[in-house]
Amino acid sequence: MSIYEARLARIREWMQTENVGVLLVTSPPNVYYLTGFDCHPHERFMALCLTDKGDQALFVPTLEKEEAQKTGFANIVTVSDTDDPMQKLRETLGDAPYGTLAVEKQHMTVARFEQLQTVFGEGKAVAAEDLLLGMRLRKDRDEVAIMKKAAEIADRAVEAGVAAIAVGKTEQELVAVVESTMMALGASGTSFSTIVLAGEKSALPHGSPGSRTIAPGDFVLFDLGAVYEGYCSDITRTVVVGTVSDKQREIYETVLAANLAGIAATKAGRPAKEVDQAARDVIEQAGYGEYFTHRVGHGLGIEVHEFPSMHGNNEQEMVPGMAFTIEPGIYVPEVGGVRIEDDVIVTEDGVEILTSYPKDLQIIPV
Amino acid sequence: MSIYEARLARIREWMQTENVGVLLVTSPPNVYYLTGFDCHPHERFMALCLTDKGDQALFVPTLEKEEAQKTGFANIVTVSDTDDPMQKLRETLGDAPYGTLAVEKQHMTVARFEQLQTVFGEGKAVAAEDLLLGMRLRKDRDEVAIMKKAAEIADRAVEAGVAAIAVGKTEQELVAVVESTMMALGASGTSFSTIVLAGEKSALPHGSPGSRTIAPGDFVLFDLGAVYEGYCSDITRTVVVGTVSDKQREIYETVLAANLAGIAATKAGRPAKEVDQAARDVIEQAGYGEYFTHRVGHGLGIEVHEFPSMHGNNEQEMVPGMAFTIEPGIYVPEVGGVRIEDDVIVTEDGVEILTSYPKDLQIIPV
Repeated sequence: MSIYEARLARIREWMQTENVGVLLVTSPPNVYYLTGFDCHPHERFMALCLTDKGDQALFVPTLEKEEAQKTGFANIVTVSDTDDPMQKLRETLGDAPYGTLAVEKQHMTVARFEQLQTVFGEGKAVAAEDLLLGMRLRKDRDEVAIMKKAAEIADRAVEAGVAAIAVGKTEQELVAVVESTMMALGASGTSFSTIVLAGEKSALPHGSPGSRTIAPGDFVLFDLGAVYEGYCSDITRTVVVGTVSDKQREIYETVLAANLAGIAATKAGRPAKEVDQAARDVIEQAGYGEYFTHRVGHGLGIEVHEFPSMHGNNEQEMVPGMAFTIEPGIYVPEVGGVRIEDDVIVTEDGVEILTSYPKDLQIIPV
Repeated sequence: MSIYEARLARIREWMQTENVGVLLVTSPPNVYYLTGFDCHPHERFMALCLTDKGDQALFVPTLEKEEAQKTGFANIVTVSDTDDPMQKLRETLGDAPYGTLAVEKQHMTVARFEQLQTVFGEGKAVAAEDLLLGMRLRKDRDEVAIMKKAAEIADRAVEAGVAAIAVGKTEQELVAVVESTMMALGASGTSFSTIVLAGEKSALPHGSPGSRTIAPGDFVLFDLGAVYEGYCSDITRTVVVGTVSDKQREIYETVLAANLAGIAATKAGRPAKEVDQAARDVIEQAGYGEYFTHRVGHGLGIEVHEFPSMHGNNEQEMVPGMAFTIEPGIYVPEVGGVRIEDDVIVTEDGVEILTSYPKDLQIIPV
C-alpha cells in the first residue's frame, strides 16, 4: 500500500465514523498530502472527492491534466475554464441524495460553499480539518528526511547571506544572494518572501527588505526558508556588523537564552504552551517582556504556517513527529531587533533540531 | 481628499444603497487598496471594518502595529495571538444590533464566517466583492504608472534570463538569474514562482523548473513577474536554442499571430470574450486548437490573477483602465510549447502594451 493509499484509507474510516456522504478536499496542501499532486490552481476548481460508496475522483483544471496524471491517481476529471464545476461534480457523483458533505472550513470560501449548497442542499457541512491537520501533525520518517534537507538548504542560504554582508550593500541585494543560493541548492521555491532587515528596521518583526544599506553597528536579521519536495523550512539568524554595543549584546544573549529554553521545554507528553512560556519567562525576567510581541512559533511542514500554533495558551499535548519553529525575538523600536529561529521535531525522548547554522553572537568584520 | 479617503467614500455610498450595517474587508489586496496597508497575516485576523454609523477601524495582528501606523489610518485595533478576535470586534462595535453584514465571500473562509455568525447572527451576508473588484478593475493614472514600472522590471528580467541561456545550464539556474535581477531592480517580490521550462517541459503550461538542462534545439519558456509598490506584472517569452525546426517555427509564428490578434481585439466597449476568440481563431485555423488549453488571459493589478477573467464566454464590456494579460499558447506534448504573454491596459481609443521585450522569434546561438 502506497503512502497515499494508507492516508486515504484512514480518511475513509473517519468518513464512516462521522457518517459523511461526500468529502471534498480542496486545499492544495491537503490535496498534495493525500495524492502527491502539487498544484496551486488559484481561483480554479480543484478537489479530491471521496464518497461513502467508495468512489474517488480528482478534479483538476484542464491545463494541469498532464501533471495530475503523473501522480498515477486513477480517476482524474478535468474542468476547463468554461465548464461549470458544480455540473461536473453532479455528473461525477450521479444521482442525489449524496449524504452529509465534509469540507475544509478553514480553507473553503463562503462563495464556493454557497455554490456547493446548490448541489448538496442548504445546511452546515462537517469540518474535515481536524482530521486532516491532525494527520499532518505527526510527520513520518520520510517527511522528516525531506524536512531535514529543506532545513539544510536554509542553513546554507543563511551562510551565503552572512558571507555577503558588506557596508553599503542593500537589504535587497542580500535577499537576492539568499534566494539564488536556495534555488541553486535544489529548492523548488521559497517558503515565503525572504526577509533581510538592517539596523532599526530589524525591529519590525514582519518588515520588508528594501534599499536600506548596511552600516557599522547594525543588526542584520535574516528570516528565510526553502521549499524542498513540497516541504518548508524556516530559519532566522541575526548578526551584528562591525561593533556591538552592550545593549545589543544583552538583547542578543537574552533571545538566545530564550531560544534554548524553548528547545529545552520541548517534550512529548507536555502541553505545547510550555515552549512559549519557557522562552517568554527568560525574556520577561531580563526586562524585555513588552518587546516580545508574538507567539514563540508555529507548526511547519507542507505549509510554512500549520498546526500546532505555539502560543502561550495552547494546551495541546506535544507528540512525537510534531514539527514547529521556536523563534523568540526582542524588538526595540528605533534601536533594533533580534530573532533566533530553529525548526524542531518532537521525538520519543526529546527533540531533534533540524536547522544547524551557528547561534553564537557573530560580529561581522567591516 | 487622499486616494484612500476617496475610495472609502465610494464604499460608504454603496453601504447606504445596499443597506449594509457593517462591512468587513479581510482580503490583503482589498485592505491594501483601501488603506495602503500591505500585510499578509496568514491565519491571523486582519480586517478593515466600516459601520453605517460612520465608524471605521483597522484590526491588525499586534506584531504589525508599527507598519499599520505608518499608513496614518486613524483607528488601529491590535489583536494579539491570545486575543479572541470576535471579542475585540464586539468591544469595538459596541452594543448590538449591527445590521446586515457584508464580507468578501470569495475570500472569507466558511470557518471565519461561522465565527462571525456568533457576533452578527445566522443568515447570509451580502457579498462585497462585486463592488471592490469593480473598483479595482479600472486602474487610475497612478496605478498605471506603477504597473508600467513593474512591467519594465519584468522586461529586464527576461532580458537577463535570455542572456544567461547556455547549453548545460539548468532551468533553476535561469530562475535564479531572473529573480535576482528583479530584486536588484527594486521589486519587492515576485508575482509568482518564476517559471523557466526547457524542451519537452515547455509543453506543461504550469510546470515547475528543475534540474533539466538546456540542450540545442530546445524551446526555453520564461514566465515571470515582479511586484512593485504592491502591483504585479506578468510576462511570458519563449526562445529557441541553436537551431529551429520548421515545426517549431510554425508553432511560434502561430502563437505570435494569436497574441497580436488578441491585442488588436482589445477595445473599450467590446465584450472581453472577443480577445480570447480572436487569439483562438488564429490558433484553430492553423490546426492547433486542441493544444491551446487555457483562457487567453486574466486581470492583473494588486493581484496577479484578478478580474476580468479573459475567457471566451466573458460578456463583460471592456472599459478604459482595465488591465489584463494576453497570453495564448500552443503546447504539444513531448514536442514542446510556446506562450507569448503581454500585459495591456484598455485605453479610451485602443490599448496600451505595458510589456515591451521583443517578440520576434529569437534563436540563441550555442
